[in-house]
Amino acid sequence: MLTKKGAATRSRIIDAAAAEIRERGVGTTTLEDIGRRSGTGKSQLFHYFPDGKEQLLLAVAQREADRVLDDQQPHLGELTSWAAWRRWRDAVVERYRRQGVHCPLGVLITEIGQHSQAAQAVTAQLLGQWQRQVQAGIEHMQEGGQVSRHLDAARTAGALIAAIQGGVTILMSTDSSEHLESALDLCLDYLRTARPG
Amino acid sequence: MLTKKGAATRSRIIDAAAAEIRERGVGTTTLEDIGRRSGTGKSQLFHYFPDGKEQLLLAVAQREADRVLDDQQPHLGELTSWAAWRRWRDAVVERYRRQGVHCPLGVLITEIGQHSQAAQAVTAQLLGQWQRQVQAGIEHMQEGGQVSRHLDAARTAGALIAAIQGGVTILMSTDSSEHLESALDLCLDYLRTARPG
Repeated sequence: MLTKKGAATRSRIIDAAAAEIRERGVGTTTLEDIGRRSGTGKSQLFHYFPDGKEQLLLAVAQREADRVLDDQQPHLGELTSWAAWRRWRDAVVERYRRQGVHCPLGVLITEIGQHSQAAQAVTAQLLGQWQRQVQAGIEHMQEGGQVSRHLDAARTAGALIAAIQGGVTILMSTDSSEHLESALDLCLDYLRTARPG
Repeated sequence: MLTKKGAATRSRIIDAAAAEIRERGVGTTTLEDIGRRSGTGKSQLFHYFPDGKEQLLLAVAQREADRVLDDQQPHLGELTSWAAWRRWRDAVVERYRRQGVHCPLGVLITEIGQHSQAAQAVTAQLLGQWQRQVQAGIEHMQEGGQVSRHLDAARTAGALIAAIQGGVTILMSTDSSEHLESALDLCLDYLRTARPG
């Protein structure tokens, strides 16, 4: 367990690393740069990240993953009306449109090794949290009778997450949000029009 | 323009490169390996690929992209009944399940540089061809009155391609086809149940 002060220092190091990485890219960012920017010495860096750069990259990836969800709030956490779903949809499109072809999380995961267990765990956790919040929204709409109770809320939420993921992947290679918007709109239209039950 | 014999040689070189890359990975495959495997000398390699390894990688990526579509045939080319859509859906899931966490095209594009114009062109062409074939299937179903004419076939096809892309991306990091299947099933269910018109 970290003390409050320790947690703040660790957090400051992660912030500094994220800023350096955004400015220079992962490849050319060194622990020295991060130490200078965060005002921490090498021994302190290794106190918080004993495995060095890769462990720190993973912490930055985790923070970027948190940010993916934060950027969708408060909409994602309160999908309780069609207006709220619409606001969430717009927030997702806006977020990724702004980000364009650069996905910090994607870059970090690629760097850590897309198939390393640690990177996979960060991705799986993000997708799981995201999907559960969408699922809670679907269930809320089902309770209110606005979405068919015949739908499997977990499966439908999983499909929605896949649709967003694909739309974002295509956006990153085409710089157009067209596919992301079509995919989100199809899913929302499906929620609205699925056979009542 | 290549002569018939020239085209065959070029094709043999691409096949040899693809096989070497599958066996050893992109990083450790050299032009010497490819020359040995295809029975072509260095001067012949540079005759067909004057820009060297990167140009050859791009040709391999193009061939892998063609294979993505070929593997979905004959189903993708004849989406004219619900049974055909179901067979196509199963073929897509089966293809990517077999491929698991390794996507040769993804690896090659990453290697060439995800944001290089050449790599983007290969990706865009693949997505465009794929989407047009799905769109033709939706239009056929609309003409037969099995899918609502209110649907925008091009946009709906784009959403389907995004859903597959996202499902495959998630499969590549989780080794589970669950999201891919949910996403495809949601889209097909949507096609079947969208408001008639």
